[in-house]
Amino acid sequence: LSQSNKNGGAWGQLETIISGISVRGEGRSMMDYAERLFPIARSITGDGLRESIKILSGVAELDFHSVPTGYNAFDWTVPREWNIRDAYVKNNEGQRVVDWRKSNLHVVGYSIPVSGQYTLDELIPHIHTLPDQPDAIPYVTSYYEDRWGFCLTHDQLQNIGPGPFEVLIDSTLTPGVLNYADRVLTGESGKEILLSTYLCHPSMANNELSGPIVMAFLNSILEPLDLHYTYRLVLVPETIGSIVYLSKHGDHLREAVEAGYVITCVGDDGPINYKRSRRGTTLADRVAEHVVKQSGGDYAVNIEDFFPGGSDERQYCSPGFDLPVGSVTRSMYGRYPEYHTSLDDLNFISAEGLTKSLVIYLRIIQVLEMARPLVNLSPYGEPQLGKRSLYPTLGTAKGRDVSVDRMMHLLAFADDQHDVVSIADRMSVPAWEFAPELDILRKAELLAFGDED
Amino acid sequence: LSQSNKNGGAWGQLETIISGISVRGEGRSMMDYAERLFPIARSITGDGLRESIKILSGVAELDFHSVPTGYNAFDWTVPREWNIRDAYVKNNEGQRVVDWRKSNLHVVGYSIPVSGQYTLDELIPHIHTLPDQPDAIPYVTSYYEDRWGFCLTHDQLQNIGPGPFEVLIDSTLTPGVLNYADRVLTGESGKEILLSTYLCHPSMANNELSGPIVMAFLNSILEPLDLHYTYRLVLVPETIGSIVYLSKHGDHLREAVEAGYVITCVGDDGPINYKRSRRGTTLADRVAEHVVKQSGGDYAVNIEDFFPGGSDERQYCSPGFDLPVGSVTRSMYGRYPEYHTSLDDLNFISAEGLTKSLVIYLRIIQVLEMARPLVNLSPYGEPQLGKRSLYPTLGTAKGRDVSVDRMMHLLAFADDQHDVVSIADRMSVPAWEFAPELDILRKAELLAFGDED
Amino acid sequence: LSQSNKNGGAWGQLETIISGISVRGEGRSMMDYAERLFPIARSITGDGLRESIKILSGVAELDFHSVPTGYNAFDWTVPREWNIRDAYVKNNEGQRVVDWRKSNLHVVGYSIPVSGQYTLDELIPHIHTLPDQPDAIPYVTSYYEDRWGFCLTHDQLQNIGPGPFEVLIDSTLTPGVLNYADRVLTGESGKEILLSTYLCHPSMANNELSGPIVMAFLNSILEPLDLHYTYRLVLVPETIGSIVYLSKHGDHLREAVEAGYVITCVGDDGPINYKRSRRGTTLADRVAEHVVKQSGGDYAVNIEDFFPGGSDERQYCSPGFDLPVGSVTRSMYGRYPEYHTSLDDLNFISAEGLTKSLVIYLRIIQVLEMARPLVNLSPYGEPQLGKRSLYPTLGTAKGRDVSVDRMMHLLAFADDQHDVVSIADRMSVPAWEFAPELDILRKAELLAFGDED
Repeated sequence: LSQSNKNGGAWGQLETIISGISVRGEGRSMMDYAERLFPIARSITGDGLRESIKILSGVAELDFHSVPTGYNAFDWTVPREWNIRDAYVKNNEGQRVVDWRKSNLHVVGYSIPVSGQYTLDELIPHIHTLPDQPDAIPYVTSYYEDRWGFCLTHDQLQNIGPGPFEVLIDSTLTPGVLNYADRVLTGESGKEILLSTYLCHPSMANNELSGPIVMAFLNSILEPLDLHYTYRLVLVPETIGSIVYLSKHGDHLREAVEAGYVITCVGDDGPINYKRSRRGTTLADRVAEHVVKQSGGDYAVNIEDFFPGGSDERQYCSPGFDLPVGSVTRSMYGRYPEYHTSLDDLNFISAEGLTKSLVIYLRIIQVLEMARPLVNLSPYGEPQLGKRSLYPTLGTAKGRDVSVDRMMHLLAFADDQHDVVSIADRMSVPAWEFAPELDILRKAELLAFGDED
Repeated sequence: LSQSNKNGGAWGQLETIISGISVRGEGRSMMDYAERLFPIARSITGDGLRESIKILSGVAELDFHSVPTGYNAFDWTVPREWNIRDAYVKNNEGQRVVDWRKSNLHVVGYSIPVSGQYTLDELIPHIHTLPDQPDAIPYVTSYYEDRWGFCLTHDQLQNIGPGPFEVLIDSTLTPGVLNYADRVLTGESGKEILLSTYLCHPSMANNELSGPIVMAFLNSILEPLDLHYTYRLVLVPETIGSIVYLSKHGDHLREAVEAGYVITCVGDDGPINYKRSRRGTTLADRVAEHVVKQSGGDYAVNIEDFFPGGSDERQYCSPGFDLPVGSVTRSMYGRYPEYHTSLDDLNFISAEGLTKSLVIYLRIIQVLEMARPLVNLSPYGEPQLGKRSLYPTLGTAKGRDVSVDRMMHLLAFADDQHDVVSIADRMSVPAWEFAPELDILRKAELLAFGDED
Repeated sequence: LSQSNKNGGAWGQLETIISGISVRGEGRSMMDYAERLFPIARSITGDGLRESIKILSGVAELDFHSVPTGYNAFDWTVPREWNIRDAYVKNNEGQRVVDWRKSNLHVVGYSIPVSGQYTLDELIPHIHTLPDQPDAIPYVTSYYEDRWGFCLTHDQLQNIGPGPFEVLIDSTLTPGVLNYADRVLTGESGKEILLSTYLCHPSMANNELSGPIVMAFLNSILEPLDLHYTYRLVLVPETIGSIVYLSKHGDHLREAVEAGYVITCVGDDGPINYKRSRRGTTLADRVAEHVVKQSGGDYAVNIEDFFPGGSDERQYCSPGFDLPVGSVTRSMYGRYPEYHTSLDDLNFISAEGLTKSLVIYLRIIQVLEMARPLVNLSPYGEPQLGKRSLYPTLGTAKGRDVSVDRMMHLLAFADDQHDVVSIADRMSVPAWEFAPELDILRKAELLAFGDED
């Protein structure tokens, strides 16, 4: 055990980093990335996805991977690669009444190419709108069945005119690849923390640009740290991408992952949600629940059991893998009206929201680094802290200070069954506040981690 | 595994049956049986018990058994057989001021024969009334100590006159038999569901005719079904009968019974109670609690821990057997003022009450048939339901339909540790509503029961 | 198993004793001891401690022990012995403005000897007061670092005058011994109940004289009883004393102790607190929680988890021993304003408070004696209580009496997993009320303890 490690390693470094994070600094920078990534026409395959991964690799290095069309991952097969250059509906005056160049949401994802004249009646079955949200373009895809279609605001449809219409979708569906990226930051332990997010949606901000951006910044922040755990950061197109990833690494992950999170919907300023892993009582759950409860401040905090809707936690938690993977989000998929529409735009997210989410994930990582089973090395009665200058030698009438109280709690419960989270929960205080006392007692050789040599 | 079984077997058949049950049909028919059985002078032995079993055998076949007087069952000995032909108290004008022919409750059960002249003072020690319920005849017995006595309304006693009285109890206590009946409906599994009720009370309706009648109808309904479990229906005189039954079958039941219920006090329209088995967390408890909570509708639902008052669950749950046996009741023994009096008559029960209770027990059986551990046969990531036409191929902006959501839940939790009850509880919906999706996924070979070959 | 034991042994004897305890009797007598012990100048070593142990040995015999200065107990070393004959601060008129003869709290415990002239400025660093409680002398000690000092009321300091002062502390710090006492009352079982209290504070009443006095009376009461458990009563100076005791007996205690309590702060009339053992779910916890809840009456009852502040439970519950030791207190250390000041005097405690605390500890002991796993010796169905005259042979309309109900509960749950506490908790009644039925059923050979031969 190196002395640097006894100085607190990553959790001490993270304390400094967290105290320096600001909305004007990291927050503004994350918004800059959001603005750059927003216009790109992404899907689960294709040029837009590749370009987006490349931009995020600029924050911190990512390893780039691909599997070919036709690749079988368990019950799934990687589809053809989809690319699109232009798409429109022109009215009989030649005006683009639907124009893909204005919003890439106007075209159903994975639309087959089409070109020709259509009457209004012929066109209507290919039109998707949201009558209840007449100013929103819906997000619609058809990855696994050949279709074409346009997504319009309902107002747009009301004013589309009588036709006939000239319709173009200049897309290609060809054998190609599915891309994804990952990064493994090797810590002193082979045990892994999995951080996964997805990248496949066109111009939408909270779901989904917020996730990849926060993950890219975590990547950058974690890279230079003296980490205990090995951190695996994964960036995949949703569903098919995580299933492909599991087909490559699932057996390893089942052995190695101690805790994991799917990072999604972390861009707005809504309440803080934690969705538990399927098992519900894993290290991932204990740490995240503790951190969100202690981080809530003025925000509402909502903790709920796993459910098989949502994102890639559905794949990681599937019974065959059953990984300890939960998810901290802000306004959650499917529960805010702007979700999966053009209203989930750059105005919906904020530098404040992204910053708060970044800090929560950093706190989770900080607490994970600390939350290892504790062992009292002087376990027969209390050790005499006074002779080590850790306890006042003058016994006075009134109470102890809080630092001594934290040391006493750490020592009293260091039975290889408790960690800093369960001890902090007994005192109803944040686990990360125990960092100084954890360092002091480890240096004094009164306390050790039960899983260290 | 036969295709018919994959079609849902008993739970599908039960869905059809339950949807066809009506107050006018089964309800009226159960009331007819109650009217036929009500006047018979039953006790724990004797002609009345035999006649009653015979009538109930007319609903569906029962196997008839007996043990002789003197038979030892654990700590108990079968008493002499008791029969009664007539009993009265005549006043000095020769009028029957107490007349067994008007109510068989007028005679203390197991009264020894008596005949002679009695002064009022001599008679009084043999008289039982309920001063607080002056119009009710109490139900009194003395199975294991020789006594004789009459039970009167308190009003009747006030007006009995000065005597002397001519007293007759034309009863016999002779070596004979104790009768009981059972029925084993063999399912594909040797594991058993025990349904037990008791038959030994004279003219009382909720406690006890309701129990045997509902059980007889369950017998008739279950007989033709493709059952997974083997169902054992047991009809015994209370206490001594179930102890005798355990002396014959206890070792087998301890091995075979997966869940069981004592059916009693199921005739009125009161709130729905579930009394847990002694262990409190068995399959019997999980399923019954789920069903009564989901069946309550406008009815109050009350769930409580086991207590050693009540009926034959006291014997089945005794520490030497500790069977997983609970009890769903309506107005429960000892808790309604008419209990164990002449006021617990045919007016106290109703076709509505009996029908609701029949349906609740059928729902319990339906859910038991379904509530086996589930295993996802495509457990690595989610199976691709779209290619099986089980999931929409068009990804739209808004939520999934409820059937897809049920399928996703079944698959996500099918880890051999969950069943349809624990999954339904997560969604706060009735387990029986999962039947169509359970059938679909089993036919698609995506889901199996963990305990099937 | 002796017949006397089947008669209820200690719990029956304790029932008689408890019903005879009175404020005028035991309460007054305990106050007499408090008055006698209060003026003595105690510390963790020295003459005052020896004299106090001797007085308490007068209530019932105690075994006297000592270890020498320099004795090593785990991380601790026994300090020099401290004695004091006189101490004062005289003003320039020769008046004792601080006088140890008026209150032994005026001198910092373990003050080194000092004698000389001091200006006010020189004296001030050696003065301790409580500005927020200007009429209270604080209790201050410096066992492990050489210091001297005086403790004054803040009012006293305000009026101390300009000086110079003549200062004397006529103390000695010399190689000697640390004393403690214990008593082992051998029961039929080698399993032990640990009752520990501490004796080292000078003139303070609730913390701490109440503890040693209640323990001495328990010693006297338990001595003649037919006990199942072996009772170990321990009287030590706080912290160093219990650590020394563990260094001598810790390995034995780890094997033998089934339950234990630190008796402290039991003299006033405040609410009843139970502080759980570190594990929180031991026999000690189950029994004490039950007893305080059932004993509360008009008193507030507060049950809380272990925390590493307080008294010697910190040593007994340290991870290396992890003994099942909790603590029932009244106004608890650190939570009442008089704590560790001269205001915690004989007026703060009362005969009523001491008596109530004595009874609660006796009830705990009574219930511990009874709370052994129960086994039904006639477990197949209910035993026939009627033939043993334990159940009415006349079955009537209405409910059972409470004694029969207690017997039925004892038998129904006597599966070697329940004891009288878990059964009483099901019925929400005091466990000690089951004593008659426990005796009846054991004599009838229907019930036994699972841990008896």
